[in-house]
This record gives sequence, C-alpha cells and structure tokens, in this order.
Amino acid sequence: MTALAEAQVAIAGLGLMGGSLGAALRSRQACREVVGIARRQSSLNTALTLQFVHRGTTDLREGVSQADIVVLCTPVGDILAKIAAISEWLKPGALLMDVGSTKTAICSALARLPAAVQPVGGHPMCGKESSGLTMAEPDLYQDRVFVLCPLERTSSEARQLAEELVRSVGARPTYLEPERHDRLVAAISHLPAMLATTLVQTAAALGQDDPLLWTLAAGGFRDTSRVAAGSVPMMMDILATNRDPILHALHEAADQLGELIACLESGDMDTIQRTLEQAAARRRRLYHGAAH
Amino acid sequence: MTALAEAQVAIAGLGLMGGSLGAALRSRQACREVVGIARRQSSLNTALTLQFVHRGTTDLREGVSQADIVVLCTPVGDILAKIAAISEWLKPGALLMDVGSTKTAICSALARLPAAVQPVGGHPMCGKESSGLTMAEPDLYQDRVFVLCPLERTSSEARQLAEELVRSVGARPTYLEPERHDRLVAAISHLPAMLATTLVQTAAALGQDDPLLWTLAAGGFRDTSRVAAGSVPMMMDILATNRDPILHALHEAADQLGELIACLESGDMDTIQRTLEQAAARRRRLYHGAAH
Repeated sequence: MTALAEAQVAIAGLGLMGGSLGAALRSRQACREVVGIARRQSSLNTALTLQFVHRGTTDLREGVSQADIVVLCTPVGDILAKIAAISEWLKPGALLMDVGSTKTAICSALARLPAAVQPVGGHPMCGKESSGLTMAEPDLYQDRVFVLCPLERTSSEARQLAEELVRSVGARPTYLEPERHDRLVAAISHLPAMLATTLVQTAAALGQDDPLLWTLAAGGFRDTSRVAAGSVPMMMDILATNRDPILHALHEAADQLGELIACLESGDMDTIQRTLEQAAARRRRLYHGAAH
Repeated sequence: MTALAEAQVAIAGLGLMGGSLGAALRSRQACREVVGIARRQSSLNTALTLQFVHRGTTDLREGVSQADIVVLCTPVGDILAKIAAISEWLKPGALLMDVGSTKTAICSALARLPAAVQPVGGHPMCGKESSGLTMAEPDLYQDRVFVLCPLERTSSEARQLAEELVRSVGARPTYLEPERHDRLVAAISHLPAMLATTLVQTAAALGQDDPLLWTLAAGGFRDTSRVAAGSVPMMMDILATNRDPILHALHEAADQLGELIACLESGDMDTIQRTLEQAAARRRRLYHGAAH
C-alpha cells in the first residue's frame, strides 16, 4: 500500500467537507497530489484558484481510476450512488473512504465492493451552518473527532493509512461500529436539527398573527434555531438512512418535553428546577468557559 | 420631570444587564450620575473600578431615595419584591423602570405603586450565555429592541424620559402591552430555553451507557443546547410569572414534534421535506448572511 506522502488522493465532491479536506492535505503537503472531482467546472476552477486541489476533473471515472486514496465527500445518498458507480474503476488496493453523516448504510454498501478495494467509512464531527466550497478552510478538521469505521475485511495497512490521513489534517481518529456511530449521532447531531426545526415551526405557528414576533428574537432563539438553516437535502438523506435511531431519539425527546409540560401544569416546580439544574450542569461541564 | 441629562439614575442589581446599563449611561454621559445598588460590596467595588457607576451603595433605601430614575435589574422575582419594598422610599415623580424578562406580573405590581411614582416596565432583548457583572459591556444594548410597557397612569413626560433613556444606550424602544410581550417571548425566548434543556436531557438519557456520546458533540449540539446553560433561578422566575403562555408554546412544540415523528414513522418524507424547507427558509430569512 502506497504511503500517504506518495499517494494521489482523489476527493469526490468539493463542498465544505471535500474542499476543506483538499485544502488541509495540500497546504500541509500531506500527500503527493490532490485531485478534485466535481460535477461543475466552476467548482473545480474555484478549488484550483484557492489552491485546495492540484488538479481537477468533472469525470468521476477519470478522477478515481488512478487514485491511491479516494474520499467521497457528498451527501449520504450520493455517496451510496458513487460507491456502486466507481467499484469497478478503482485501482486494485486503493483505499476508499467517505465523510458521510450516517455510517450503517454506507458501510453495508462498502462491504459489497470488490475484494481488491480497501474500504474505511468515516465521519468527521465538524461542520458549519453554511456549507459550500467558499466556506471551506484548511483548519476545519483541526482537533475534531474523525470517526473511522473500518470493515472486517479491511487490511491493517489500509486502516493505518486512513488513520494517517485523518491525523495529517489535524483530526483525532475515533473507531466506532457503524451502528453505534449512528445511534450516537442521532442523539447528538440529528436530534438537535429536528428540535431546531421544531422551534422555528412552533414560533412561526405561535406568531402567525403577530408581526412583532421575529423582531423580539434575541440570542436564545438565534442559537437554538441555528441548525434549522442547514442543508435540507443532506438532512433528508440522513433521515432516510438513520430512521430508527432518529425516531428513538425523537420519542425520548417527546417524553422529556411531555414531562416538563406535566410538571408545569401540575405546579411541580421542584422537579422542573432539578431538571433545569441538571441540564445546565451537563451543558456547562461539556463546554467550559464563556465563549461557547 | 427632570431631563435625562440632569437625572440621577439608580440601578438596582449589577449583573450583566444592570452593569451594562450603568456602563452605557456613564460612558455616553447620558445622565448626571449613575448610582449602583448591589447586595455585595465586592460588586460595587468591581462596578466602580470598571467605571460602570459613579458611586455605589449596598443600602437599597439610600440608593433609590434620591434618584430621579430607578431601574430594577434583577431577576423577575426579586424585581417584584423590590417594587413592594421601595414604593414608599421613591422621590415623588420619580420614574421607575425595570428590565425583567416577563412583564404582566411586574406591570401589575407597578400599577399598585403610590400615584406619585411614574412606572414604565421594560425588557431589553439582549443577553449573553454568561451572566454577571464581569460580562457587562457598554454596547450590550446597542441596536437591540428594548420593549417598553408604560401603564395607563404613566404620564407622557415619564414615557418620554423612559424612551430617552433607552435611546441613550443605543437601543430601539418598542411599545407592547405586557400580555402581548409575554406571549411573544414565551415563543421566541422561553421556548428555546425549554427545548435546549430537553435536548441536553434527552441526549444524556440516550447516551447513558455510552461514554463516547459527548465526544461526538459538534456545532449542532453546541448551538442548540447553548441556552440550557443559562441561569436557573432566572428561568424559574420566568416560569412562575409566565406559566400559561409558556405552556401554550410547549404544547404547540409537542404537537409539531409529534407531527415530525408521525411522518417519519409512516414514511411521509414529502411532508417532512416541506417542513424542513419551510423552517430553513424562515431561519435564513430571519438571519441573513453566514455569521449567525
């Protein structure tokens, strides 16, 4: 297996994730060459101008066929389509990675790849409210957890190479089973998105007759609703491929919300206070300091 | 009625709100003198060192009895207690304001004041995750909406003086009936807090057996949970004085959440997509640009 320093890395999808990955690899000179693959020539031009890639192509087959490492950086549904599409085009022994938001469906697809391909699922725990290539930056992955899901069939050399790539962009590799990953991100990532959507829709419903509603929105609403502005197609893919864990999380949230309502209705303010104190302590423990 | 430039302004409570108000008034030389009133001498010392006030006292009676304008800057429960306590100590014709998070209970208490006092309820729509005097800053109110609730009995001179004070710290006065204010902030401020608490408690419940849960928390969880770390005593006062509008908002949120769950369970992805798109469009309309 080619060492990372000697490898050609092809990145399919030049959005926030793919663009930042190219920027990080190229600016740190972590590999021999970064090849960008995008549907639109304009994205490639931007990525070239910003020095995120060494060269680019709109031809998926051409882009992946010479690569030692291919990283799929599109939404989950497109990653699934690309895994099927490129399976016969990859170089024997090539490492195939992805940065998709859910891992069970993707790792199942990776398992069906020809034996010569070395698959390692991945999911970096970072992002921004605004997606797109122009938001990309070489430090996006710095100090972030980067979940890795090697398959049983994945060679130890391929695992090591994947880990080396993750470390080379400053991220912290964390190994997880796909199912465990999906259960955890349902609670910590997909649930916040659904609650943010719930907040926006609820406020809109409550404020229907009052044009002043939005003028009163301050920091609390701004922060709590932020991820509701995220990419809808990406979220739809997440919902489609992580339905059961998300449903489980939503039911738990509905129960918790129902308990708050019941306590407030019955005047059980002691229980509410304990709940608020527990949540505040948990949130403060998680994010020390004032700037978060 | 004394003009603002000639007025002595007493600020009772030197936390984030009171400290910032003093800082804004003093730094802009908006009034003759800013008197800080705090329970602890150490708070007064800090406020004096930071030049947020001209002088300070721990004696509430002494602090308010010579003031032309008194602004109560403590949590709602304490504001209610102070309104009762100081009613006989205020100078005839003095303007009494507050910055409490709910307005119906406070305006009812203001209505019971002696006729010589001129009351105007207030609520600036600003704040930070971290409270306290050390987080105070003279620009906290800049360009923020500052809700004003004059009473029927309030003279037009007193209303004008309140508005002048609000404008002098850079805020935008907005007149609202107390009940309307409370209904709107239940949706736009109190509901986010309760949903943030729900998120933290739900994630904790779901992650109980998995120590890795919190290590996967990224921007989505951080933003959506932020206000759960707010002041619990302040929130308890809010819940006690704005129970019905908050319950109404919580029920609406539970309904919205229930609809999302039902759609996901039945596989009605079209409706979910429409909901997500609506919420994303609303959120983006509200906060243009990428930095929010």
